[in-house]
Amino acid sequence: MAVKIFEIKKSVYENNDREAEILRGELKSKGVFLLNVMSAPGSGKTTLLLRTIEALKEQLNIGVIEADIDSAVDAEKVAKTGVRTVQLHTGGMCHLDAGMVRQGLDNLGIDGLDLVILENVGNLVCPAEFDTGASKQMMLLSVPEGDDKPLKYPLMFSEVDALVVSKIDCQDYFDFDADALKDRAKKLNSAVEIFELSAKTGQNVAQWTDWLHREVMNWKEA
Amino acid sequence: MAVKIFEIKKSVYENNDREAEILRGELKSKGVFLLNVMSAPGSGKTTLLLRTIEALKEQLNIGVIEADIDSAVDAEKVAKTGVRTVQLHTGGMCHLDAGMVRQGLDNLGIDGLDLVILENVGNLVCPAEFDTGASKQMMLLSVPEGDDKPLKYPLMFSEVDALVVSKIDCQDYFDFDADALKDRAKKLNSAVEIFELSAKTGQNVAQWTDWLHREVMNWKEA
Repeated sequence: MAVKIFEIKKSVYENNDREAEILRGELKSKGVFLLNVMSAPGSGKTTLLLRTIEALKEQLNIGVIEADIDSAVDAEKVAKTGVRTVQLHTGGMCHLDAGMVRQGLDNLGIDGLDLVILENVGNLVCPAEFDTGASKQMMLLSVPEGDDKPLKYPLMFSEVDALVVSKIDCQDYFDFDADALKDRAKKLNSAVEIFELSAKTGQNVAQWTDWLHREVMNWKEA
Repeated sequence: MAVKIFEIKKSVYENNDREAEILRGELKSKGVFLLNVMSAPGSGKTTLLLRTIEALKEQLNIGVIEADIDSAVDAEKVAKTGVRTVQLHTGGMCHLDAGMVRQGLDNLGIDGLDLVILENVGNLVCPAEFDTGASKQMMLLSVPEGDDKPLKYPLMFSEVDALVVSKIDCQDYFDFDADALKDRAKKLNSAVEIFELSAKTGQNVAQWTDWLHREVMNWKEA
């Protein structure tokens, strides 16, 4: 299935925070929940996305925006699930801001959608600095990356509503102290919801998708 | 062992490429080889660095510059090997340019060194865009990150002299097609030297360190 690819342009807005607030308000008035998913390259965002769609697609109308420097490999995988999907190319840019996300939403078309999942550029630094207009933000950290990441990339851990620790099926193989990771994340962000799961085996995925479903319903009803 | 931490400032140079060329020339005249090591967060740069120091420290005088947004965990590990080490904090910046590297080299002190290893900020996007003045550039890609990374981050693969594929000890555990990865990397950069190794078990590490040693000697003698 061919996926539409859009080359997005650098935003013209000077005040990204204000643009993000405006976008968030518009999405809220339309009952659309936007989830901004961030992680390092190779954490498994797309694999978790496929599990998430599988779990929620009967209950929610879902759309997906994939953002990458190049290629459409992720969007092609997601499109096979049957959900509306577009691929954005950032023209080398390392993050998305609210104006770029608005271009993505316009290309996707959000009428009738309950949930739009935005897979941000794989990067633990720059995406954390830009409000995309998302309703909630999730960060994915995979076990092979190590438990020291909150020490090195504190802003990302501070900004997110949910932290998903993934690839726990290989926890025995790597030197990964899950308690240390959780302590470090909570020290930066006491309100963060933490989920530990394996998108590969499906272990604990329902805890994450139940939370997301609840957040979407709260957003639509509040 | 306490490591000195330096908060580096944004560079004032308008033309980074020119500054990088000047720095490279100065290093060459002093017989100092600068290796720029780049990867995604959690690829295992520091673990490989420890193996590399272990292999080469009898033959070469080595110094290490660690660059991170925050923390000094990597520099503290490296300093235990006895090599001269400094930690740079980038003040939130997602990459290093030549002017920032110059600050790092000044803080480290390069007199008498043969090899300076620069561990860049963990990021597959921004560091590839800035010439640091390095003699050679190496990228580390770990098996859990997946074989599709050249498709998504082509600039990084295009810019490097050596690609080290690490964590091959867990290759059977992950869906990782090493041949596909190598084909994709070679398509972007036919001259790239590719090494496949495990810094954890030590497998094939000598192939990498032999290459690096040879490059350092060529640089000093040419």
